[in-house]
Amino acid sequence: MTEKRMKRLRETMQANDLDALFVSNPKNIQYLSGFRAMMPGDVQPFGDPEGFLLVQPDRCDFLCDGRYIEGARTLPLVTPQLITSPSSAEVFARKIEELLEPSARTVGFERDALLYADGAGLLDALSRMEWKPAEAVVSGLRLLKGSDEVHLLRKAQDITGDCFEHIVSWIRPGVTEREVAYEIDAYLKTHSEGCSFDPIVAFGESSSHPHYVPAPDRKLEKDQMVMLDIGAVHEGYCGDLTRMICMGKADDRVKEVYDLVLTAQLLCLDGIRPGAACHDLDALCRDTFGAKGCADAFAHGTGHGLGLSIHEDPRIKMSITTNIEAGMVFTVEPGLYFPGWGGVRIEDVVAVTENGYENLTRISKELLELDC
Amino acid sequence: MTEKRMKRLRETMQANDLDALFVSNPKNIQYLSGFRAMMPGDVQPFGDPEGFLLVQPDRCDFLCDGRYIEGARTLPLVTPQLITSPSSAEVFARKIEELLEPSARTVGFERDALLYADGAGLLDALSRMEWKPAEAVVSGLRLLKGSDEVHLLRKAQDITGDCFEHIVSWIRPGVTEREVAYEIDAYLKTHSEGCSFDPIVAFGESSSHPHYVPAPDRKLEKDQMVMLDIGAVHEGYCGDLTRMICMGKADDRVKEVYDLVLTAQLLCLDGIRPGAACHDLDALCRDTFGAKGCADAFAHGTGHGLGLSIHEDPRIKMSITTNIEAGMVFTVEPGLYFPGWGGVRIEDVVAVTENGYENLTRISKELLELDC
Repeated sequence: MTEKRMKRLRETMQANDLDALFVSNPKNIQYLSGFRAMMPGDVQPFGDPEGFLLVQPDRCDFLCDGRYIEGARTLPLVTPQLITSPSSAEVFARKIEELLEPSARTVGFERDALLYADGAGLLDALSRMEWKPAEAVVSGLRLLKGSDEVHLLRKAQDITGDCFEHIVSWIRPGVTEREVAYEIDAYLKTHSEGCSFDPIVAFGESSSHPHYVPAPDRKLEKDQMVMLDIGAVHEGYCGDLTRMICMGKADDRVKEVYDLVLTAQLLCLDGIRPGAACHDLDALCRDTFGAKGCADAFAHGTGHGLGLSIHEDPRIKMSITTNIEAGMVFTVEPGLYFPGWGGVRIEDVVAVTENGYENLTRISKELLELDC
Repeated sequence: MTEKRMKRLRETMQANDLDALFVSNPKNIQYLSGFRAMMPGDVQPFGDPEGFLLVQPDRCDFLCDGRYIEGARTLPLVTPQLITSPSSAEVFARKIEELLEPSARTVGFERDALLYADGAGLLDALSRMEWKPAEAVVSGLRLLKGSDEVHLLRKAQDITGDCFEHIVSWIRPGVTEREVAYEIDAYLKTHSEGCSFDPIVAFGESSSHPHYVPAPDRKLEKDQMVMLDIGAVHEGYCGDLTRMICMGKADDRVKEVYDLVLTAQLLCLDGIRPGAACHDLDALCRDTFGAKGCADAFAHGTGHGLGLSIHEDPRIKMSITTNIEAGMVFTVEPGLYFPGWGGVRIEDVVAVTENGYENLTRISKELLELDC
């Protein structure tokens, strides 16, 4: 698999006139080499580096500090290279210079996966090379998932669904938002590699914040709505699922808002096929809300790609005019948020196929009213 | 509190000839505004922004996307400003330009808390301003803790101590390192906001790696030593504690090494007062080991500052010649590591006072020999 990806990468480098590519995005490095960084985030500071790739037509070097050199020897297709500590832009520039073929003139780099201080220092210390923006190179390969990746994403979404069902059977009036979040965290740590993002657990009016942080002292009341937005990680791949639960009986307004969000979500799903434009898919949700006079209550985009990262391209948003293609995997998650009342969001993960899409999410979207 | 910090910040800005300061480091933003970011890491990409501050003498704006605007309205002293989505360096540049006072000429920015793409794009799009490196401005304020912060750090360290006592009462021969790590994680998630770093749990010779990752299959044996290095998070502030436990009877070599490390740690604590130099405090440990011919077995610095981040200034290291001041909070954690045998480290957190220091750690440093 790694070999096939490396071959496609070298073809892309050639098409982009790159003699070398310096890969600093940890997810891109994982995608190409299998190396998994310990630190969170999409940028490794030179001052505390884990591993970097320098890819050239006939060699691929893995630059890392002493903590990782042992592990690097087990990676296929790469030559481990020790970076001296404490490292800096100058240390990296010297090592890259040493490894570059004498004929190399252009080096691609990922502008979105270096700190400003490190990137500016590196370009300055190796100014005889032509540095070309190349953040789209590996992420371009990652945009279209192989069947092996769809398989891992399906599994991640399955475990996420299992976690949701566990919470449904476990939740009861009186628990706090934070207790629910811990239960999700413990479940996903036991049944997967952990959470793909901090779980969102919002009771009642808290759910009007799309990205709410669970409160330690907010207790679930009878007949209150619960928003759960959760995701597992399976072999590095992310799940993402939002569902609403009613801890008792839903009132008419809840049912009305829920039905409207569900209608929008189903309409959008129905529009998914290769060639559909991202902004048109977004409009399927937005216009549904607009027709009911509540487009303003939909304060975010309709969806985002996911894979090794929880947020990737494609973005299903008003401003994105590109078309979706078979192999893309993204969320469909319209929502309506009313401050002081609460919010409703419904989210699935889908994989675009040759003829339409596969919904990787198997959890029902009927409004759940639990006995209590 | 926020008001006082903002006042000190504006004085620092004036002293540094900054008409405005663009704050992108999430911990700095939390320190100034109370806003807590959800994403991990110390850098927020413009493409997926949480919240940023633009501080000027007479106003402070909080730039965020739609997901956070509701929460931003609850923050004191800031004016929420919606960043249109999808955002970019150009979007930020336009919004900053709109908010800058007409007389503003210089803008400070944090080079270590922006992506290269974002920083380069921002400076380019707003090139009429003079952009000045200012990553030291807010971190300089954070260096000296107020009594409110010392209070939170004391509480974080108290909860960390409670966790240690829980593990002492719970641990038994046969448990694995990873099981102990999970128990710590569960305890700290239930009694605080979670772990300030992944717990270090090392049995016997594993403890010769200062930053060891607990193994799933390594079981505790009778008379084995256990190194625990753990920390709680309380209202964003970090605890940090290392203690050794003997699961039975300690042998003579353990006692000898333990006594030497404890002697070094107590000597260092004794040297803490305003005006003491960081490298001199480090030398109090290093020379104690040197006198016994084992300075080489002390493979790291004596301590590090902590607060909203687990690693902050001051660094208590050989190479740091600056003096400590009242209000600084840092760890004192000498250790000795012998490959094939194991290691001993003893760590407290102290707050420097006008006359000396307060030890925020209440857990005894007598060598614990547990019945088994």
